[in-house]
Order: sequence, then structure tokens, then C-alpha cells
Amino acid sequence: MTNKKIPDIVVGRLPLYLRSLQRMSQEGRKVTSSQELGERLGISAAQIRKDLSQFGEFGKQGTGYQIGFLMEQLSQILHVDRVWDMAVIGAGDVGHAVTQYQGFSDRGFRVTMILDKDPIKIGIQINGFVVQDTANMEKVIQENGLKIAMIAVPAEAAQKVADQLVEAGVCAILNYAPISLNVPVDVRVQYIDPAIHLQRMTYYID
Amino acid sequence: MTNKKIPDIVVGRLPLYLRSLQRMSQEGRKVTSSQELGERLGISAAQIRKDLSQFGEFGKQGTGYQIGFLMEQLSQILHVDRVWDMAVIGAGDVGHAVTQYQGFSDRGFRVTMILDKDPIKIGIQINGFVVQDTANMEKVIQENGLKIAMIAVPAEAAQKVADQLVEAGVCAILNYAPISLNVPVDVRVQYIDPAIHLQRMTYYID
Repeated sequence: MTNKKIPDIVVGRLPLYLRSLQRMSQEGRKVTSSQELGERLGISAAQIRKDLSQFGEFGKQGTGYQIGFLMEQLSQILHVDRVWDMAVIGAGDVGHAVTQYQGFSDRGFRVTMILDKDPIKIGIQINGFVVQDTANMEKVIQENGLKIAMIAVPAEAAQKVADQLVEAGVCAILNYAPISLNVPVDVRVQYIDPAIHLQRMTYYID
Repeated sequence: MTNKKIPDIVVGRLPLYLRSLQRMSQEGRKVTSSQELGERLGISAAQIRKDLSQFGEFGKQGTGYQIGFLMEQLSQILHVDRVWDMAVIGAGDVGHAVTQYQGFSDRGFRVTMILDKDPIKIGIQINGFVVQDTANMEKVIQENGLKIAMIAVPAEAAQKVADQLVEAGVCAILNYAPISLNVPVDVRVQYIDPAIHLQRMTYYID
């Protein structure tokens, strides 16, 4: 792998490739092609070959891709050939749901702590974790060396939480609060807001 | 508004503008500018002016945008000046969470039914809705004229559910199952898969 700057949009497609390969692997498959991947993903085979070629030579003309090998390579490239511990901030409905979410295992992530500021929630157990007080957030995140956190607090509290997370060393935030966050350039934020996704579709429906 | 084809990427930013405006409105604000919106969103003021100008003349040079008026216009453009009824397919953890999600109100959406195929789940109540049998899915979705559905079933069941939803008249699917769906060109799909979002960030973290 070289140090050349890969466009974010290319990086953004790699997890989709990895997910499809993992699914094929679960189906007992050993080999695939850019054509088949493309059909599964609604992306052109040429685009997939071009994206992958930015990172190395993963397949042979005519014989396709070894699924296991390509999964391994993509996992390394995406740094999910390890398990990242994550904190969930906010123990409301969304915080509950993401703490219990089954879809992180085998994809490089696990929730290892959940925090809230509400005295009623602090101390309760969710999925085996005792909800901790956000008053200690910076300390426990630093002590545990966490780099990734999910924000599941109300919109009006989210920016302050983000500031504290960054202060504690977090450099990747998955934000469920319906608000855009301001963070330093070296911190990444991704957003999940179902209403935004839905509005991107209703534009096209009468 | 004209019939000219607006790029999807421009349409995709409009919900972000609307969300920021709603937030400003809740803060009691009346007027904003493309500069302020841009700072909140991390998008350039020029981009925002250019995006909005595709749909009409919403602000005046020097006086900025009337927040209430621009919200109204964007709601109309995005067709969320009404409330869309939605079905949730799958009454597992994710289905539970989206059925109870508080963030749809005032943004154009409400869940009005939840279905599952598991006899243990059929008949239980979630947020006031009795879980219905997916055996009747096409019928109840057609009868209620639903256009939007959220898929929260396991990956291996998602494509079949999507096919049935399309058959029943659904033309917008928010898919929580970790799999890409194949649908006709006139059907829109948006995806929510937290592991995909997280992997888009870990690429940049060592």
C-alpha cells in the first residue's frame, strides 16, 4: 500500500465491498468477480476494479478475486483486522439500541462503555454494562484509550459532548444526534439521521 | 420550481439545510445567512447559495434568509409539508428502536405499522402498535396506501421483503439490513448500517 491520497469517495465504497464479500463468504463462496460484486452492489464492474487497483493487485484477469484473500486485504486497509472498543454517550432509546446492536461483531467493533448524565440512568445495566456518569467521561475514555465514540444525546447537548470527546482523544464520532458537529480537521464524524435519509427519498415521490 | 433535473447530491443537502433551519427556529431565530448556515454545516456559503438558487429566489442580497419562509419552501420541495405514514418490517431490536424513535415528528414522518414473520412477535404491542404478520404485508400496505417502508429484518431475508414491498406499491425504502438491495429504477433505497459508517472512519485512524 502506498501513501498516496485516496479520494474519500473511493474509501467510502470499500466497506460496501467488504460487506458483500463477507456475505458471499458466509454463503460458502470462495471466488467472485468485479461483475458479480457490481451486480450485488449496483456499482459498475469497472468502478470496482478501478477502486481496488488503487490499493494493489488483488485479482487475476479471468480468474477473479479470492474472496478470503480480498476480505483480509480490505480489512487491513480499513483497519478492521482488529476490534475497536467504542463508547456510547447517551443511554436513551437510541443509546440502548446501539449498545445492544448485534451488527458490530465480525466487522471490527464492540461497545465497551455507555455513559449518561441523568442520575436516573447512571448505574442501570444495559447489555451487561453499567451506565456511567458523563461527569467522568474524559477520564474513563482516556484511561481506556478509546478512539471511537457514538453520540446518542439530544441535539442541544451533542456539540458539548463532541468537544469533550475530542479533548479525551476520540478521533472518530458516529453521531446519532440530529445536528451537524464542529470538530477539528483531524477528527472524523459520520452521521446517522433516519429523517435525513427519508427526506432524500420523498423529494422524488409525489 | 422548474422541472429541470437537479443532481442527487444537491437534493441530498437540502434535508441538512432544513434541519439546521428548524434548529435555528427552535432557538427563536428569525433570519439567517448562507454564511451562518455554512458554518453550522461545514459547507461553503457559496455552495449553499448555489444549491438554493436551483429551486428559486429565497433570500435577498444583504438581508439573508427568512428562516420560517425558507423552511416552508424546503419542506414543500422535499415533500415533507405533509406527514408520510411508514411501515416497519421486522420487530427485532432495530425494528423496536425505529418504531419508538422520537426523531420523526415534525420532520414529515410517522410509523403506522410494524410487521414480523415470527409467531412469537406477532400480536405483541410496540409503541401502541400490534405487530402484524408479514404474511399479510402486501395486503395491508396496499390497503393503507403506504409508499415508504423501513426494513429491519436479517440480511438473508431483506431482498425478499424488498421485492414484496415494491410489489405492494412502496417506492422508498430505508434499509437497516446490512445488504445492498436490488430494486427497480423507480424505487429509491437509502441505507443505514453503522458498521459501514465506522469503517469509513477507521481507514483514517491508525
